[in-house]
Amino acid sequence: MKLYVIGLGPGDEKYLTAEARYALEACQVVVGYQRYLDLIQDLIKGKEQFSTPMGGELKRCRMALDFAAGGKPTALVCSGDAGVYGLAGPVYELAPEYAGVEILVIPGITAALAAAALLGAPLTNDFAVISLSDLLTPWEVIAARLSAAAAAGFPLCLYNPGSTKRKGHLEKACDIILGCRSTETVCGIVSCAGREGEQSRIMSLGELRNQKADMVTTVIVGGAETGLIGGKMVTLRGYRRD
Amino acid sequence: MKLYVIGLGPGDEKYLTAEARYALEACQVVVGYQRYLDLIQDLIKGKEQFSTPMGGELKRCRMALDFAAGGKPTALVCSGDAGVYGLAGPVYELAPEYAGVEILVIPGITAALAAAALLGAPLTNDFAVISLSDLLTPWEVIAARLSAAAAAGFPLCLYNPGSTKRKGHLEKACDIILGCRSTETVCGIVSCAGREGEQSRIMSLGELRNQKADMVTTVIVGGAETGLIGGKMVTLRGYRRD
Repeated sequence: MKLYVIGLGPGDEKYLTAEARYALEACQVVVGYQRYLDLIQDLIKGKEQFSTPMGGELKRCRMALDFAAGGKPTALVCSGDAGVYGLAGPVYELAPEYAGVEILVIPGITAALAAAALLGAPLTNDFAVISLSDLLTPWEVIAARLSAAAAAGFPLCLYNPGSTKRKGHLEKACDIILGCRSTETVCGIVSCAGREGEQSRIMSLGELRNQKADMVTTVIVGGAETGLIGGKMVTLRGYRRD
Repeated sequence: MKLYVIGLGPGDEKYLTAEARYALEACQVVVGYQRYLDLIQDLIKGKEQFSTPMGGELKRCRMALDFAAGGKPTALVCSGDAGVYGLAGPVYELAPEYAGVEILVIPGITAALAAAALLGAPLTNDFAVISLSDLLTPWEVIAARLSAAAAAGFPLCLYNPGSTKRKGHLEKACDIILGCRSTETVCGIVSCAGREGEQSRIMSLGELRNQKADMVTTVIVGGAETGLIGGKMVTLRGYRRD
């Protein structure tokens, strides 16, 4: 039976792709973090719905695989993209135990893209995506990646810059990046992209260092070719040389 | 007047977000590369349509800004995301010459996400996105970024790995990456994601080096935690330690 692993985008239904909508229609069971189920409630009314609390990612994947293995077309929903820090990975990890389940990954608008669109066009050229959460990756690995990507001039999109449990990560990350970028580097911070309370602000790397960030915050740190144009954060790509 | 810079996703309408659809409905003029206009023809029938050939990106942006400045709500369409190697950047570059035009960037499914979904879940964790086109970026800069990102262990998503004019870039890129990754590294190559002729193949970095790539190809090179599970390309994120 089919298991759709669906990226819902940042939250608002406007970000949902047609493919995600079809898959939600086609399934009988929907599994997800309760907050995401709430966001799509009018699309999944009448379907069997199951959630597990934050941190129960593997349990959520197993639950969805169990329903699909039991013969019910099932959707496992993720915010943003289904793959980027999403559940497509752990579903495939568990899949060998569930012969007969056909997995279909349905991509969605990941936070980097939604945040970039609100800030201007900071990801016009090459970029790196790094999560500051050290729940699953040791901080030393995160620090080394930040350092390498900053030195190579990439604009950086930072996911999970903070939470109630993890404080100070954004500050530490900024300090690493400041090792090879100016304090005046143009940065952007977006909260609740496409949801109630959406906020976006552009500021310098020096100011970013002192910002509070939580689980619904996405940060973009400009690269060598990133500047401010008309109040927007824009990375140039050299089209002027055409 | 409003200028919507819209990311259409990889091509097929299934990837279109609801927001992109509303914006196409709201506009009177649609500007884009002809191939992308063709892909959405049934959504924009009856609207004024204008295209410029490949390479005419700045001209296309100017055309769209002119229509919006002239009082017509206008859509400028890009494949993939509106920002990632898209036209949101050059539009903002030109915008100071067009007071009164309100720019709205509408994100879309970029090739990295569509390709990843077809290959499995290669972008579960941090990753870097790099274009191999040296039309606008010198090859030395591209080579340095490839080298830094490969050394830092990022899975790499490679855009524009080849074209009729630019041959050998994928081979050169693989040689750089092979400087710090095994020839057995799991890689994926996707052509025409979501379009007629869609193909995806998983292979080793050694094999990837000898592949032909064109403008509709996207390549993902696995990182330190990327492996093969049930024939799919999957990057682990350590959930097993939960």
